[in-house]
Amino acid sequence: MVFLPSGKRGSFAVGTALLDAARQLGVDVDSVCGGRALCGRCQVLCVEGSFPKHNIVSDGGHLSPFSDTERAYETRRRRSLATGRRLSCQAKVLGDLVVDVPAESQVHRQLVRKKAEHRDIVLDTNTRLCFVEVAPADLYNQKGDLERLRDALFAQWKLEDLAVDSSVLRYLQPVLRKGNWSVTVAIRGHKEIAAVWPGFKDTIYGVAVDIGSTTIAVHLCDLISGELFNSGGVMNPQIRFGEDLMSRVSHIMMHPESVTALTEVVQQGVSDLIASVAKEKSIDVNDVLEAVVVGNPIMHHLFLGIDPIELGGAPFALATEGSLNVLARDLNLRINQGASVYLLPSVAGHVGADSAGVILAEEPYLRDEITLVVDVGTNAEIVLGNRQRLLACSSPTGPAFEGAQISAGQRAAPGAIERVRIDPDTLEVRIQVIGSTLWSDEQGFAESIRHCGITGICGSGIIEAVAGMYLAGVLTSDGVIDGRLAAKSDRLVADGRTWSFRLYSGAQEILVTQNDVRQIQLAKAALYAGVKLLMSRAGIEKVDAIRLAGAFGSHIDARYAMTIGLIPDCKLDKVSSAGNAAGTGARIALLNMAARREIETIVRRVEKIETAIEPQFQQFFVEAMALPHSVDNFPELFAVFKRPETGKPAEKTADRRQRRRKQR
Amino acid sequence: MVFLPSGKRGSFAVGTALLDAARQLGVDVDSVCGGRALCGRCQVLCVEGSFPKHNIVSDGGHLSPFSDTERAYETRRRRSLATGRRLSCQAKVLGDLVVDVPAESQVHRQLVRKKAEHRDIVLDTNTRLCFVEVAPADLYNQKGDLERLRDALFAQWKLEDLAVDSSVLRYLQPVLRKGNWSVTVAIRGHKEIAAVWPGFKDTIYGVAVDIGSTTIAVHLCDLISGELFNSGGVMNPQIRFGEDLMSRVSHIMMHPESVTALTEVVQQGVSDLIASVAKEKSIDVNDVLEAVVVGNPIMHHLFLGIDPIELGGAPFALATEGSLNVLARDLNLRINQGASVYLLPSVAGHVGADSAGVILAEEPYLRDEITLVVDVGTNAEIVLGNRQRLLACSSPTGPAFEGAQISAGQRAAPGAIERVRIDPDTLEVRIQVIGSTLWSDEQGFAESIRHCGITGICGSGIIEAVAGMYLAGVLTSDGVIDGRLAAKSDRLVADGRTWSFRLYSGAQEILVTQNDVRQIQLAKAALYAGVKLLMSRAGIEKVDAIRLAGAFGSHIDARYAMTIGLIPDCKLDKVSSAGNAAGTGARIALLNMAARREIETIVRRVEKIETAIEPQFQQFFVEAMALPHSVDNFPELFAVFKRPETGKPAEKTADRRQRRRKQR
Repeated sequence: MVFLPSGKRGSFAVGTALLDAARQLGVDVDSVCGGRALCGRCQVLCVEGSFPKHNIVSDGGHLSPFSDTERAYETRRRRSLATGRRLSCQAKVLGDLVVDVPAESQVHRQLVRKKAEHRDIVLDTNTRLCFVEVAPADLYNQKGDLERLRDALFAQWKLEDLAVDSSVLRYLQPVLRKGNWSVTVAIRGHKEIAAVWPGFKDTIYGVAVDIGSTTIAVHLCDLISGELFNSGGVMNPQIRFGEDLMSRVSHIMMHPESVTALTEVVQQGVSDLIASVAKEKSIDVNDVLEAVVVGNPIMHHLFLGIDPIELGGAPFALATEGSLNVLARDLNLRINQGASVYLLPSVAGHVGADSAGVILAEEPYLRDEITLVVDVGTNAEIVLGNRQRLLACSSPTGPAFEGAQISAGQRAAPGAIERVRIDPDTLEVRIQVIGSTLWSDEQGFAESIRHCGITGICGSGIIEAVAGMYLAGVLTSDGVIDGRLAAKSDRLVADGRTWSFRLYSGAQEILVTQNDVRQIQLAKAALYAGVKLLMSRAGIEKVDAIRLAGAFGSHIDARYAMTIGLIPDCKLDKVSSAGNAAGTGARIALLNMAARREIETIVRRVEKIETAIEPQFQQFFVEAMALPHSVDNFPELFAVFKRPETGKPAEKTADRRQRRRKQR
Repeated sequence: MVFLPSGKRGSFAVGTALLDAARQLGVDVDSVCGGRALCGRCQVLCVEGSFPKHNIVSDGGHLSPFSDTERAYETRRRRSLATGRRLSCQAKVLGDLVVDVPAESQVHRQLVRKKAEHRDIVLDTNTRLCFVEVAPADLYNQKGDLERLRDALFAQWKLEDLAVDSSVLRYLQPVLRKGNWSVTVAIRGHKEIAAVWPGFKDTIYGVAVDIGSTTIAVHLCDLISGELFNSGGVMNPQIRFGEDLMSRVSHIMMHPESVTALTEVVQQGVSDLIASVAKEKSIDVNDVLEAVVVGNPIMHHLFLGIDPIELGGAPFALATEGSLNVLARDLNLRINQGASVYLLPSVAGHVGADSAGVILAEEPYLRDEITLVVDVGTNAEIVLGNRQRLLACSSPTGPAFEGAQISAGQRAAPGAIERVRIDPDTLEVRIQVIGSTLWSDEQGFAESIRHCGITGICGSGIIEAVAGMYLAGVLTSDGVIDGRLAAKSDRLVADGRTWSFRLYSGAQEILVTQNDVRQIQLAKAALYAGVKLLMSRAGIEKVDAIRLAGAFGSHIDARYAMTIGLIPDCKLDKVSSAGNAAGTGARIALLNMAARREIETIVRRVEKIETAIEPQFQQFFVEAMALPHSVDNFPELFAVFKRPETGKPAEKTADRRQRRRKQR
């Protein structure tokens, strides 16, 4: 008998179940019920005959006849038996066979991934389900219920020396009796009984949690199929203690006792979000057995109940940089009380577990091309490198890219200008606003924004505005708004000694002031200086590919970013959005144990550069203040901007809107 | 150089510290500070010279001169340096030496034990202290604080791959800074950081907890010295849900939601008792790092939050019979949040972790003589055997021995008659009462009991009364009170068709009724039948030694117990009290890790006999109803009782009283 695709082969006694044969050979065939025809996970395709000649199997041939149990499976609602397939726990060897194990019947199967994501995930979760039939309690053969459960797990699953979570002991006895001594056990890490349910059960869930300073995102995955079931996000309730990270740390410095409250609200917020994401799919939170958490160092510490005060000043010492396994109950998470939480390792004091998630999702360490991964927030986390070498730093960009410190700045929400086009000849402006799919010069625009109005400009909008102003000659390369153009257009508005540029005037006038331009220059210079520092340290002149991670990264247009010198030069088709790479990294670590070991090893290899103590950083920063790509010396970008925007079909833009709305 | 008493020897470079030399040879020398002359635990005695000729060391000889550091130790309050001794971390090898490591400088030293206890304890605790100097956080060499602590523990103590309790992370950073990067770490099981304190610290504590249905006892031990620091006891607050075990289980059967309350009160009770025992010695409960808990199966389950309902009926299934390690915080114990709790294994559904504690304390499995260990409560737990074979059962004696179901019965408390002597000629009665040290015919007796009065009779009193009545001929061998003696003494009082015997008449008349005698007969027959069942199963006719465990066991007089057939015949000098053996067992497991492994192995070897399903048990029970040893065929006992009680010096009795009062 030979199993495909592994090619493992062996001889077995007539009458051996295919599943047993597979087990003996170490062939990867899934089963939750342990061969009782309950789960339908062990389906295989059989062809018989002397090798290498194969014929489709016929009853009475080299395989036992199709059983009634299998027939019942043909019409099952879930995991029904496809034509030509057999349940390997029911079908028995009668002669030579070739058994093909389809991907969905393998435990360690590859999951299909979204296009934006780099790697495939091989399903290999920390917690698995095992159905067992336990010997009932017996007065004549006294033994504890747990010990009889352990005996059954050994006899039926070869699991030995299993520890038990203390929460399980509290309900083990009624569950065994309710299930009439048949139970499904969640086994964690091949070594611990994490939960027990009466009867047969074949679904448990895990959550990947990304705790951002602004939003918390949760992705609920089926741990048996690997499928992403549902996602959701909420505002981080810590916002009431301070909008950004540093204001929260300042709040704690002034009110040291408030750490507890900051921890409680974020733990509560995560719990509530998990509950709501689970409820939307009618899932019981007690079926959630695993969580993987990423977050920047301050979020990470506060989630664990650690005072982040040390991260507020040099030497920016983390309580721990290693990965952590904590019980969900110790973090007050309202999921199964035996559930465990894995926190990805941090890279350095400013480069947290979220960056580790980004690295894991993006895998620059597996490629030859030198990739720059940038995750922009109040701090930009920057990772640069390839399989030879990996460097990381954090650069203090400030909150300008998030719309703060900009006169008309606002969070990316309906009413915010997010796209800006400026005609270099007329200085006329076209805009797009979050909440509408139309450009401002298209018919119906006014109607389409009536519900939200035009209230300000968000991060991606201000970048396009500054870049557009520069390309149109409104800005000099050192970032001064050229008031001489007031003669040409009334969009230039005097403002004391400096000038502003009017983007829009309606109920509210939206201007880009000279100070706004300075803020963007400072922010982009900080980011660029960080990138330059890593490139200089790595001894390279250019990067092969750029990945922009995070919400901001998925909304900015690479061309504009390059125009103003936010990112270094790179082939335009090699600059792309990595989506929520931190969350993706968490999801990978949720579904694949090897990925946890991988990122734990990788982060230790990362060279951490501390911008605060690098003299070069200041130099790069000053050099990066100018706007680098003028119309004249970058005709490619100029050509794009000159033409009316027609590149993107309306449908695609609508899609993007919808996705973005969902994330909020 | 040679170390005594181990005899280990080796050659070392001139200038090597004795402590380092000892470490390299694997010689057991204690140190908490790791060789920094802070703890004073590494004291040794040195003699120099070529072997085998030894001379007391003189300065400038084979050993470095007495240092100033050591001189400062001569006048220290704690752990001062005795004359002739050296600190092995300060004294350095200059030539041939014989180094004697006194017992108190060894980690694994033997502790001196009380006479009542069988075994010596070798100190080998689960949790130990290590003082370390950690490299301060450094902007130029970024690393998490935990990682730097781990590095220090590896460099200074060779401890590798240490896990960390999540509670430690919450306070690690401020503690490191408060201690100016010197901290003392509690390491559990050589593999986990359980707690951290700023600076040098050399005391942590553990508690042995014995949860009885009636009382909870706590013994607070210094985990570094092994010393018993303080003990205390309180009533089990579950009593408000039912006096005895079965009434509590019935309460739960009727009010299933009350399990939580029963768990909460007992966890709270244990916490409160630990707090009060610690407070009496000015000890911070955060310095308590270990707890070991014993209790009968129902107490064990309720303490863990497990519904004990399965133990209320056949097949008496335990949730688990194995030992358990649980975090203190998961049991809501208010000790250090990183503390762990070890629960001894249970033997069987009726023979709990308390019996395992008794077995561990009594070690019948290490002896050739066949020992019977009896722990009498509402159920009597009986263990029989020697190194070849060990059997155990539980016998339903009922609460008569605890004073319940006896007409004038009461708990052993001031005012209770506890000793009874009956003159066989005159039928005159002498009694002793808890709260007084005088016999009732001694001068001053009335005065001595004025504060408490005479309110009833306790378990040991009723046994002496029944035995005395039998020996005096008031009772026939089948337990009938002989009314014909009414002609001889007015102590015989008619009571319908039966007779009672008056022990005392004062404010209250205290009688032993015919029914009281029947209750005692039933109880002692159940106990004896259990013993007989084990003896029959073991194929033996007699036991070599009897140990009576528990409060009741330490108060009953073996001679009376034997007279009425409570225990089988045995040489009187081989019958003794084992004291609170369950608590002693817990204390052994607290101080010695090998003992934990030992009892876990031993309980699995114990043959469990279930009295409820043994037909022989009923037969033995019926046979055991009679009173076996009459005056005529047991002259030895008779002789003792005839004489006025002079055997025990008054002082000794007073001692015993005082001890008993303390236990309440």
